[in-house]
Amino acid sequence: MTNRSKSQPNDKMALRLDFSHMMSDFVGPDRGITRQEIDDLIPRTSAIAADIEAKREAGDLGFYQLPYDMEAAAAATDMAGRFQGKCDDLVVLGIGGSALGGTALFRALCHPLHNLLSKSERGGKPRVFILDNVDPATVGSFLDFVDLEKTVFNVITKSGSTAETLSQFLIIRQLLTDKIGRESVKEHLVVTTGAGGQLRQLAEQEGYPLLSIPETVGGRFSVLSPVGLFPAALFGVDIAELLAGARYMDDRCRTDQLWQNPAYLAGALHYLADVKKGLSIAIMMPYSDALIQVGYWFRQLWAESLGKAINNSGETVNVGPTPVVASGVTDQHSQLQLYSEGPFNKLITFLLVENPDQSLTIPRHLEPREGISYLGGHDLEELMQIEAQSTQLALTKAGRSNMSLILPQTNAFTIGQLFFLLEVQTVFAGGLYGINPMDQPGVEASKQYIYGMLGRSGFEDKAREAKKWRDRGGRYTI
Amino acid sequence: MTNRSKSQPNDKMALRLDFSHMMSDFVGPDRGITRQEIDDLIPRTSAIAADIEAKREAGDLGFYQLPYDMEAAAAATDMAGRFQGKCDDLVVLGIGGSALGGTALFRALCHPLHNLLSKSERGGKPRVFILDNVDPATVGSFLDFVDLEKTVFNVITKSGSTAETLSQFLIIRQLLTDKIGRESVKEHLVVTTGAGGQLRQLAEQEGYPLLSIPETVGGRFSVLSPVGLFPAALFGVDIAELLAGARYMDDRCRTDQLWQNPAYLAGALHYLADVKKGLSIAIMMPYSDALIQVGYWFRQLWAESLGKAINNSGETVNVGPTPVVASGVTDQHSQLQLYSEGPFNKLITFLLVENPDQSLTIPRHLEPREGISYLGGHDLEELMQIEAQSTQLALTKAGRSNMSLILPQTNAFTIGQLFFLLEVQTVFAGGLYGINPMDQPGVEASKQYIYGMLGRSGFEDKAREAKKWRDRGGRYTI
Repeated sequence: MTNRSKSQPNDKMALRLDFSHMMSDFVGPDRGITRQEIDDLIPRTSAIAADIEAKREAGDLGFYQLPYDMEAAAAATDMAGRFQGKCDDLVVLGIGGSALGGTALFRALCHPLHNLLSKSERGGKPRVFILDNVDPATVGSFLDFVDLEKTVFNVITKSGSTAETLSQFLIIRQLLTDKIGRESVKEHLVVTTGAGGQLRQLAEQEGYPLLSIPETVGGRFSVLSPVGLFPAALFGVDIAELLAGARYMDDRCRTDQLWQNPAYLAGALHYLADVKKGLSIAIMMPYSDALIQVGYWFRQLWAESLGKAINNSGETVNVGPTPVVASGVTDQHSQLQLYSEGPFNKLITFLLVENPDQSLTIPRHLEPREGISYLGGHDLEELMQIEAQSTQLALTKAGRSNMSLILPQTNAFTIGQLFFLLEVQTVFAGGLYGINPMDQPGVEASKQYIYGMLGRSGFEDKAREAKKWRDRGGRYTI
Repeated sequence: MTNRSKSQPNDKMALRLDFSHMMSDFVGPDRGITRQEIDDLIPRTSAIAADIEAKREAGDLGFYQLPYDMEAAAAATDMAGRFQGKCDDLVVLGIGGSALGGTALFRALCHPLHNLLSKSERGGKPRVFILDNVDPATVGSFLDFVDLEKTVFNVITKSGSTAETLSQFLIIRQLLTDKIGRESVKEHLVVTTGAGGQLRQLAEQEGYPLLSIPETVGGRFSVLSPVGLFPAALFGVDIAELLAGARYMDDRCRTDQLWQNPAYLAGALHYLADVKKGLSIAIMMPYSDALIQVGYWFRQLWAESLGKAINNSGETVNVGPTPVVASGVTDQHSQLQLYSEGPFNKLITFLLVENPDQSLTIPRHLEPREGISYLGGHDLEELMQIEAQSTQLALTKAGRSNMSLILPQTNAFTIGQLFFLLEVQTVFAGGLYGINPMDQPGVEASKQYIYGMLGRSGFEDKAREAKKWRDRGGRYTI
């Protein structure tokens, strides 16, 4: 482990965590956390940090390597270069971890109306569509709409066996074949997948361009692998800066000193809030439209990593905070009433941006008018910040725990930090909960029923069980 | 109250609620609800129903009148007619209840790619933008993008004093004035507001077209008022059918017989699940992209109506389930792990559509290939339904309570039913919790700080308090 001491040129772009309103001297003794409670976690922190470091060194926690994998970054950039300027549309076929990272990058770092701009206004970049569902209304409308000959499809599934993604892929492969001939399909497809699996075999056989997802990188930790990097390079993100941001955060988080490690500290605060204070709902509330999809990316990371039935000792524990995304200021007019007055079961993490790129001044109204004129002369940036502060103050006074992750700006470097911080926070929190943050055994049961009902061989008993269940009488309906 | 008996021509489009998996004989005794527990609520149901009926008759619960208010519907339709064909873009300026209903209608009933289609493909309807935030990056980009001369702005705020909406309005009014002159502004603005307030005065003075929100209709219950109807009429929703659907549901829900009233029954199940079984998180999970925004509309309705500190007897109770939106099948790859294995604190309501308009067949792969071929010949509609069933079965077997609201199709008539059902369910649940579902006192505190910090006169003490709080030392940051 490193001990970070000297200031670095990027420090002015460093993310900051303000957790004052988590602490008992700010939010009150009932749900507030004390210094002592954090200190009490120090011995466990040393053990968890050592375990993480050992796994990292053994290569078992692949996401730690991604910011340093220049080969993978170059492969993604080169692949993007092959399609750059030649396609009008980029369509990602993927679901869960194969979709959420790319969506977060697109929304955070591209123009808010990117897909409505002209090609020249987009700087020649393609429009971006991320098809993360199999709803026939959406997929069908989309296929009617898109010009296949000017589109690149990026099929992303690590296992190569995700039913939803393969279904989309089979449909699109057929459409492409019918339209442009079997030989040309490979000019419109990029397959991003793991080392094994049927999709890789098929791609190799049919000559589709391939990008690899390392085996030790789980879907929800894959945003800095080619899963996120190829689309991001194609829609114009500076992926070198993105990875530099992640490395910068790695440097800050590679210490076992709890009070000095922002990711560990955030993980510890979340854990204490949930387990000791009953704050079982973890709300992420960006005051920035661009960061809302980062919230949805985190929602998978947090839920799937920490929501576990069985702990590392084999005991049934049924743990896991429930992540929720809210949006400032919008949800002040939707969820704030509940957050202020409802049960004391929520911890809110605000995502704040210190220096937005744009602002807009509210004009002064010509004649003084009570209830309107006071707005004149302020600007929207200021309004947004005042609303965030007012919400924090009101919530804190009402005894509601909250903290703020502050980005100096929204750019590839800060977004890289943010992803990496939250990933390390998740792995560390998994250690505190005593569960395995890298698996997802709970989705297996429903997958087997899906296979059974679709008639996949080997799952006949599941098909029978599902049929019996559907036919069960005595249902309650109105 | 009416007693509904004879079948009606619209019955084949009736929404159904299947609550089998809420009941102990399906989901097990630990979190399952018994018939007896529902029966035990019958006396309270009679009292609550009588109270609702009395308030309704007195005109205090204005949303009940909306499906019958043909004058308001005609005003919205006429206003839409004035702009129909004359504008390329409709922009709603509103937040919370002024935005969420229109967004839900737009997403449920318009083409999934509406804003990307050409004007003729849209049937001459305008593109639709709902600006429900003051983020300068979003608002600024949008104003650079839009052609003001071909745009109609619908400013919606019942109080006429919503800071965010007024700020947007002042900016746009200035831009319009600069571009087309003060006299022409009224050709590009429609103001939807309550009977009083500064905005109405200003609109009357400057001659802006006006639509009225009845005083007894709260923002989150206003989707069937001109708040939702004017935009919906302009983007092509059959608002007569929408209101007919609401009336149809009203007919079903105007009985005090708990077992026969779908809205009351759903409200009772939610209440029992929360209060008796500890299921404090209410997830709405549509298996339909078109219905996701209905989930966000409901999220405000449920949170703001039921999240209350003080009950009707003046006692501090801090109640309110936390609504969450998830999306099927997408969130099977994000949240299902937590829902299946995490704490027993969730109730999932699936929104299912029985007969989607479109389907798409997955082609059979040319050569048999393990792990891929089984998908061939199925279609996406079937895949979606099989995934929903598999998720329900797996969750129910894991002891996780869930129910399903089933729409025969997605159309204006069923969406009208859905809105109305959920509104009545909310008012009834408010009765069970013993709180006032129509107010929102918890957002007042932060509003006063906002006014203070913006320098509105009369709020100087709040400004001082906020400053003192910002300047407080001893903060915890990293």
